[in-house]
Amino acid sequence: MRIAVDAMGGDAGPRAAVQGSAVAVQAWPGLEVDLFGPRSLLEIELESLPRHLAAAGSHLAVHHAADVIRQDQRPSDALRRGERSSMAQMLGHLAGKHAVAGVSSGNTGALMALARRELGMVADIPRPAISTAIPVRGEGLCYLLDLGANVDVGAERLVDFARMGDVMARHVDGLEAPRVALLNVGSEGTKGSASVREADAWLRELPGLRYCGFVEGDGIFAGAADVVVCDGFVGNAVLKASEGLARMLIERVQTTFEAHWSSRLVGLLARPALRRLKGELDPVRYNGASLLGLAGIVIKSHGGADATGFSYAVLRAAREVSQDLPSRLAQELGARPRRQARPGRTALNKSKGE
Amino acid sequence: MRIAVDAMGGDAGPRAAVQGSAVAVQAWPGLEVDLFGPRSLLEIELESLPRHLAAAGSHLAVHHAADVIRQDQRPSDALRRGERSSMAQMLGHLAGKHAVAGVSSGNTGALMALARRELGMVADIPRPAISTAIPVRGEGLCYLLDLGANVDVGAERLVDFARMGDVMARHVDGLEAPRVALLNVGSEGTKGSASVREADAWLRELPGLRYCGFVEGDGIFAGAADVVVCDGFVGNAVLKASEGLARMLIERVQTTFEAHWSSRLVGLLARPALRRLKGELDPVRYNGASLLGLAGIVIKSHGGADATGFSYAVLRAAREVSQDLPSRLAQELGARPRRQARPGRTALNKSKGE
Repeated sequence: MRIAVDAMGGDAGPRAAVQGSAVAVQAWPGLEVDLFGPRSLLEIELESLPRHLAAAGSHLAVHHAADVIRQDQRPSDALRRGERSSMAQMLGHLAGKHAVAGVSSGNTGALMALARRELGMVADIPRPAISTAIPVRGEGLCYLLDLGANVDVGAERLVDFARMGDVMARHVDGLEAPRVALLNVGSEGTKGSASVREADAWLRELPGLRYCGFVEGDGIFAGAADVVVCDGFVGNAVLKASEGLARMLIERVQTTFEAHWSSRLVGLLARPALRRLKGELDPVRYNGASLLGLAGIVIKSHGGADATGFSYAVLRAAREVSQDLPSRLAQELGARPRRQARPGRTALNKSKGE
Repeated sequence: MRIAVDAMGGDAGPRAAVQGSAVAVQAWPGLEVDLFGPRSLLEIELESLPRHLAAAGSHLAVHHAADVIRQDQRPSDALRRGERSSMAQMLGHLAGKHAVAGVSSGNTGALMALARRELGMVADIPRPAISTAIPVRGEGLCYLLDLGANVDVGAERLVDFARMGDVMARHVDGLEAPRVALLNVGSEGTKGSASVREADAWLRELPGLRYCGFVEGDGIFAGAADVVVCDGFVGNAVLKASEGLARMLIERVQTTFEAHWSSRLVGLLARPALRRLKGELDPVRYNGASLLGLAGIVIKSHGGADATGFSYAVLRAAREVSQDLPSRLAQELGARPRRQARPGRTALNKSKGE
């Protein structure tokens, strides 16, 4: 299995991507990684791989790309002038079937736009949706989508998100019948925006989907569903606020113990438990967001991810490859009812003059 | 100062409201509370006040109201048939100037609709916005609004929220120039929904407001602003997800220590620190959401609040009374530029055919 990596998207240069790729190669037998970026920079990183990763170096190949897409570059500009960038070269490699998945921690909007152009979409999904798994109560995970790729969306896109999340949870995570829910401001059908209520009516009539209605924000972390669907604006706000809150709470846990535990003995005893706790809450463990709906596998890593974090994104890509996610999406979403014959046409639609 | 309390909105009957009112009376010299609900139920609670609250009983007066607004009752139904309910009676008492503020932990939609009818609005705000303070990094607080009262709102309402949040933070919290921000999916002006970008252009030109542009979700808890403004759907999702996440993380902190600390000595030593931590993170401390824009003070308490939580909501009301918040809002928002002459008219408006 060969995965293409844009090594230049990280906030702190290519080191996290190169070392993270090496970590992933060690963890996934048979994995090869093609790294994209300025040759000289990447070769320096390869030569200075830490000793415990050095053996993985022979499974990492450098592909020269002179340019880099900047974080503040507009997608339209990336499309027009990004051809020689590590991101576009990486995606071109993927489109040319030289690799089976791609990973980047660069500019999300540019990644979406370039990936869509290079790889195309499945079924009639217009744009990729971004989804990531977040830790919820117990040992569970919940896929949240969309996370910012699509704002101001209508009911039809929410239904697409629900179906894509369902396919992913079934095939990549092996859940037999994932519980799919719509995020709303109340659990009653009379609440929420027009598009959410319309999507609710539609999803209720969709065969083969274990749709369980509305959840409110607290339901996400309570583990009320395996897939929670919302507009990209809402999902992005919820995800980023959650990251910010988790960071703040971990800090407070540490401060509490440092401030009040005068005994050095207790401080020493507490340290391993605190470390474990921090590890458990660490968002890095869940690094790697899927760009769903592409006719190919592309994973977005967090720009601030370290080598360990980046390796999770590469391994996420490997898992999606092993389950052939795009084919599953194409197959299951291609078979969906046509727009004209969609179920769930209710008074809500009619009131809009349809 | 006399505050009217709907004692019947709590999830577990009137006890939290009655005891919470007694706690508030003890904390705020000169405070009197008028309790609304079925006389017999409230009298039982008053007679069984715990010993340390018994002295406050003489400052609590029972006002009989036979009915209760149900949590699942529609606002329209509450307006039509809720006249004899504890909520409507409490608001009528307030409208008749028999009290200076009202508190309820009942059905939010019904409370908004009834309060709007009974009290009216200030300036030309069409509907109340809901706002609450959330704890952020350091010792700070951040007002988030709207929290669900208004979904699918346009730029003009977002600007109203910004101005109301600014007035509240200045007068109730004594901040000289609160930093006001718009929640968005990116910090660049090219990102986000049309209404958010339009509101941004407008706020940039608004005199007297310390507007600091867009923040993303993580900026809320990082303390990037004192007032963060968003659509009610987004605010509600962010707030409830944060409550859910905080609950999950506190559980994990406890589990981590219980699971790994075999030494009873350490367990005993850890207990006070854990208790303090839980207290610090306890959302109850910040209970009490303001219904902003009403020509009167109404505070919504969390339905699940205990007596301590409810007392915070009553004390929040007392603080807003002491600063005469509705007059400040009427004065400052009444002086705003008229709609026709609003600044920030950009290409975004024109593209909508205005």
